[in-house]
Amino acid sequence: MISKRQTKLITSLNKKKYRDAHNLLVAESPKVIRELISEGLELVELYTTDSANWSSIPHTVITESDLKKISTLKTPDNALAVFKKPIVPPISETGLTLALDGIRDPGNLGTLIRLCDWFGVADLVCSQDTVDCYNPKVVQASMGSIARVSIHYLDLKVYLHESTRSIFGGFMDGTSIYQINLPEDGILVLGNEANGICPEIEKLITQRIAIPQYGETKRTESLNVATAGAILLNEFRRNYR
Amino acid sequence: MISKRQTKLITSLNKKKYRDAHNLLVAESPKVIRELISEGLELVELYTTDSANWSSIPHTVITESDLKKISTLKTPDNALAVFKKPIVPPISETGLTLALDGIRDPGNLGTLIRLCDWFGVADLVCSQDTVDCYNPKVVQASMGSIARVSIHYLDLKVYLHESTRSIFGGFMDGTSIYQINLPEDGILVLGNEANGICPEIEKLITQRIAIPQYGETKRTESLNVATAGAILLNEFRRNYR
Repeated sequence: MISKRQTKLITSLNKKKYRDAHNLLVAESPKVIRELISEGLELVELYTTDSANWSSIPHTVITESDLKKISTLKTPDNALAVFKKPIVPPISETGLTLALDGIRDPGNLGTLIRLCDWFGVADLVCSQDTVDCYNPKVVQASMGSIARVSIHYLDLKVYLHESTRSIFGGFMDGTSIYQINLPEDGILVLGNEANGICPEIEKLITQRIAIPQYGETKRTESLNVATAGAILLNEFRRNYR
Repeated sequence: MISKRQTKLITSLNKKKYRDAHNLLVAESPKVIRELISEGLELVELYTTDSANWSSIPHTVITESDLKKISTLKTPDNALAVFKKPIVPPISETGLTLALDGIRDPGNLGTLIRLCDWFGVADLVCSQDTVDCYNPKVVQASMGSIARVSIHYLDLKVYLHESTRSIFGGFMDGTSIYQINLPEDGILVLGNEANGICPEIEKLITQRIAIPQYGETKRTESLNVATAGAILLNEFRRNYR
């Protein structure tokens, strides 16, 4: 059973304002929930229609129709969990850091978090206008990586200004990544889906880099930011292992 | 004005069966429509709520509410166009070809089409159970690249069996892409989102390749197929330009 009060609390967590106020996040789909539990996130409440599969974890059994009420998915996936937001350790001033300037699409942010996890990028730094990483769609797309990458929201201008590492930025007209020896330490900045890196951040970039198209003729205008992030992070890592 | 008959035809084109029967596809958003026109796709009909922006192209002015009826987007973007499907040239037996085994997500297919365009992959070969490339979501995600990449649906087993080029497959346990000299000619196979490359296709792979995680500990289970495709296509191209 789920009370009206609980239903109201959970649906309110679709909004950043209430996630911040309660310090909570929502995860759906058994796979993501199990990963967050095994990463040590504090489970507040687990609701499921499928009690048999969760015997080792305290849970509340609810009906399909109650799950539908609290789920953000078109087709709810048997379970929904409420977690305390993770405690984020301080930013490291070494290694490779990814910085995002105004990413708006939850799917893109989720994919970029997963990429940080894959490529051992400990810190992901986001401008204040980047979509919230505890948005349910981001949690879903990041597939548990959200518990393994430290995600910081801050004034990106101040952060970059104060950093002593090289600052690389992805641009259409940058130097080819095939012609640069990318270092193991540094900051990689990726910009907004429609407008790229904003002029104020652009001034702080020490090296503009680009992914060359293959062949003579320029065809497509640009790559999706998550796709570009995948290629660039791979280029940063390929010489260091 | 749009007639009931036209409305019915256009909404029927959400289904592959009707796209095949009429040999038509639907594109939305002015950017994608303009790109498909400039690539020479045959425009059958253009509907818009914004006549001033389309003065050079024959069009039918419709109301917002009529556009909403025929659009597949939550927020229709001023225009919707019906095109004849492109005429697909025969497959080339040289160069780099991307082969997809059972990709189901339209966004992933759209991203992979855009990547083929970026990396000069002329032919994209899809198993019969891969999502239709003229699905409106694929057309939208491919951002016009659908007109520049030749997309073929065929029996992937037969195609790979008859090919004389090396066949590379993306696997979790393959040889590191950093340890192989990837050739300029070949076929790269990527598998289904949940199950990877199916056993029958796996038998035909001549070289299993993998994207290594950075660092000692294995963390995330896998990368999204479009993300993996981005990294692998970049690796195939980075030594040849």
